[in-house]
Amino acid sequence: MTAQEAYTELKKRIREISILSTTAGVLYWDQEAYMPRKADDHRAEQLAQISRLTHEWFIDTKTGDLLATVEGSDLVKNPESEASVNCREWRRLYDREVKLPTNFVEEFTRVTSKAINVWAEARQKSDFAIFQPDLEKIIDLCRKKADLIGYETEVYDALLDAFEPGAKTAEVESAFKGLRTELVALIAKIKDAPKKPDIGILRRPYDIAKQKVFAQIIAVAIGYDFEAGRIDETVHPCCNDLGPFDTRVLTRYYANDISEGITGTTHEVGHALYEMSRQTKEHWGTPMGDTPSLAIHESQSRTWENIVGRSREFWQYFYPQLQRIFYQDLHNVALDDFYGAMNWVAPSYIRVEADEATYNLHVMLRFEIERSIITGELKVTDIPGEWNSRFKDYLGIEVDKDSNGCLQDVHWAHGAFGYFPTYALGNLYAAQFWQQAQKDLPGIADDFAQGKFDRLLAWLRDNIHTQGFKYYSNDLCQRITGQPLSHKPLLDYLYDKYAGIYGITR
Amino acid sequence: MTAQEAYTELKKRIREISILSTTAGVLYWDQEAYMPRKADDHRAEQLAQISRLTHEWFIDTKTGDLLATVEGSDLVKNPESEASVNCREWRRLYDREVKLPTNFVEEFTRVTSKAINVWAEARQKSDFAIFQPDLEKIIDLCRKKADLIGYETEVYDALLDAFEPGAKTAEVESAFKGLRTELVALIAKIKDAPKKPDIGILRRPYDIAKQKVFAQIIAVAIGYDFEAGRIDETVHPCCNDLGPFDTRVLTRYYANDISEGITGTTHEVGHALYEMSRQTKEHWGTPMGDTPSLAIHESQSRTWENIVGRSREFWQYFYPQLQRIFYQDLHNVALDDFYGAMNWVAPSYIRVEADEATYNLHVMLRFEIERSIITGELKVTDIPGEWNSRFKDYLGIEVDKDSNGCLQDVHWAHGAFGYFPTYALGNLYAAQFWQQAQKDLPGIADDFAQGKFDRLLAWLRDNIHTQGFKYYSNDLCQRITGQPLSHKPLLDYLYDKYAGIYGITR
Repeated sequence: MTAQEAYTELKKRIREISILSTTAGVLYWDQEAYMPRKADDHRAEQLAQISRLTHEWFIDTKTGDLLATVEGSDLVKNPESEASVNCREWRRLYDREVKLPTNFVEEFTRVTSKAINVWAEARQKSDFAIFQPDLEKIIDLCRKKADLIGYETEVYDALLDAFEPGAKTAEVESAFKGLRTELVALIAKIKDAPKKPDIGILRRPYDIAKQKVFAQIIAVAIGYDFEAGRIDETVHPCCNDLGPFDTRVLTRYYANDISEGITGTTHEVGHALYEMSRQTKEHWGTPMGDTPSLAIHESQSRTWENIVGRSREFWQYFYPQLQRIFYQDLHNVALDDFYGAMNWVAPSYIRVEADEATYNLHVMLRFEIERSIITGELKVTDIPGEWNSRFKDYLGIEVDKDSNGCLQDVHWAHGAFGYFPTYALGNLYAAQFWQQAQKDLPGIADDFAQGKFDRLLAWLRDNIHTQGFKYYSNDLCQRITGQPLSHKPLLDYLYDKYAGIYGITR
Repeated sequence: MTAQEAYTELKKRIREISILSTTAGVLYWDQEAYMPRKADDHRAEQLAQISRLTHEWFIDTKTGDLLATVEGSDLVKNPESEASVNCREWRRLYDREVKLPTNFVEEFTRVTSKAINVWAEARQKSDFAIFQPDLEKIIDLCRKKADLIGYETEVYDALLDAFEPGAKTAEVESAFKGLRTELVALIAKIKDAPKKPDIGILRRPYDIAKQKVFAQIIAVAIGYDFEAGRIDETVHPCCNDLGPFDTRVLTRYYANDISEGITGTTHEVGHALYEMSRQTKEHWGTPMGDTPSLAIHESQSRTWENIVGRSREFWQYFYPQLQRIFYQDLHNVALDDFYGAMNWVAPSYIRVEADEATYNLHVMLRFEIERSIITGELKVTDIPGEWNSRFKDYLGIEVDKDSNGCLQDVHWAHGAFGYFPTYALGNLYAAQFWQQAQKDLPGIADDFAQGKFDRLLAWLRDNIHTQGFKYYSNDLCQRITGQPLSHKPLLDYLYDKYAGIYGITR
């Protein structure tokens, strides 16, 4: 077998795995969107079966043999060639996955799939005790996973690596440290700011049917393809990849708060725009058509949600339309008052509802807590207490109930320890990319004021979306911006915006 | 390996196949209900992959070996034991499936999955030429399938057997012949009847949101479990089995006809009630938890749609509720006028909208046409002409366009040649079961007038639903009613009902 034949065969085999993974994507989407409650147990069986199959197919010794054949050939001479990039990642994943026994993988999926509904009940009743037994099982499985995979310095590294390839816990910790000091100072300035917007504008009854119409107007305007996706409602907003030309968004609307439906939908559509740029036949289902990390993915959703979707230019264009949809509620409210309210900064309980400044503190808290759960320093029973005490330290408010605290996020039920840090890293990448985009595309923010988003989308496509997994996150950042990741661009961006709204200076 | 061990292993292997089949069920449901259009091609790939896998797993020589071990043991001594029933059917399916090469099965699924959307477009534009190339491919595949499987006397037998195990084309033909003569006479009497209901009552604008509420009121009342299913909208109503405790209904509502939403939903809920009775852990995914045939399944949907849902007693209970939902439209319409309209009999184009009397003529026409397509007597290009000419003969009206003729049903796009006859057989079984239920449950129709459906449902569960595939359709009918299948009960039932409404006598 020639190296070329081996590579073709390898691609074919991986393609089968990718197809089956998108079938799991349909099952997950359905579970979040439409599945009847009593189907929980069977859905867990269906998902466990698929995870077992994809794992078995991938760790087949044939995969390793084919990889070895290609790796020893000229096909991988140029490290940026398609074959090099794909084989580099297949090798990394193969060496990782081959350490996990199939029954472990199946068990992990079964346990987490069932836990999601237990978590949902615990959250609804705000009763941590309901979720605790499942969470303990999941944490044991995560620790076991980390042990099986192995790590150099810290157990959490093995988990973090699944979401943020190449990242190390210690690096994340040090990046967060500098960011935290700066954010705490910023938030203090805003607390004592000479002027403040009126958040009450947003927190009134707004008809949900009309909110949906407006959210879809934004989605279409910024580039979401409704013939290759759809937007439905759920408890926990997300973007699901069900295969090429099938990227669906799940969002939610609040009857008494108009901002959540807008920012939540724009966020998930931001993820979807990334997926929608990468569904070419050529690279679909391979690393060349994949993403370097969740932080890079998150940088795209945060770009659209915050940098675009909370900008004054964006609302210059959309606010008159919103006023036509909600005439009675908004015809008396000036653009700058609405824009200010959309950029309200204040400590609050829920991460996904947090403003751009306090958001990252929510993430750091989770990072620290899950790191100490995984090392075993923190016991599961002590999570609520630890959460609430840290929350008081960082954000200055007392958590009133666990549904507003440690039960608010679904991630732990999914077994996704190591996922949270990527949210804050995503914000840093987004701001740094945006700084560069402004240099490369003069007057880009003015485009938004005219309802034009195609120049920015094309820039993101060229620089990020269609790069696939050619480069690791840090390298991609260096290549695009000429600098390693830093928290400076985010702080510059935030001070620039809040100077106008709050009258503060750095 | 002991026979018991072999049987346990066999069950475990088949259970995996059943789980994967329900995953395909989710993909099919989603395709009909929510999938975006551009995802067609990829969905076809996903479904083809699953059909390849389930086929490969089933025809594995290991299945044959395990079966042989059990078949040679005491486990199958009693022909009605669980092991006997399951092994009888696994053997029948194994001997059938093993003749089909895996790439053929995968190709069949891929071609038909893609053809569904081509058919939908052809139907929407009423242009047979759009669908013709795909249909030709499908017919070739169906003929090839029949040749691979083999048959004794007639090629169509091999296809019919997949939907109606044990049935022969010649028997179906002779059963239909007697039925046809009687129906034609009945329809002629109704045409010249001394009195007639006013169908106009139903064919007015009715708010669709309110129609949905009413359809769900009926679904709950007759026993549909909304925690183990859901009702959504589609173009072609169906009932999808997505696994135990997940039986979903797809239905449709017309803005200018209140009857379609009611009868269509009740029909599909009738199928769902059958599934919902058979989701016990013990037999799920095995023949003991399966159905003998599509005709038996259809007998359940027709029982609820027609025998219950078009009865005077049913409307005695529900009509006052419907009047409260549509007060302005119906407060002046008397119960008997509404009941009469719901039993309107007149030739019409669309099978699924046909009344109980003309319906079976629609089915016979399809049976005859697809039989001659499969033998090759009828060419694909000649289908529209042949359809329209036979339609004129049987129903006395000219087909105005192919969307009202040979393009109306999705079945051929699915490659489901041999399926149609089961619809008429289902009507015959339904009437014959109902005759027996009236004997076993005195005063059962009066239950409906009080909104009680549990006695009938329990009878259906005991006699049919929980019998699984213990007996073939004909045997089941003989056991329940003491008679072989006959068209007499259906005719008795129809004359009995129409005597009151139309003033006709036999």
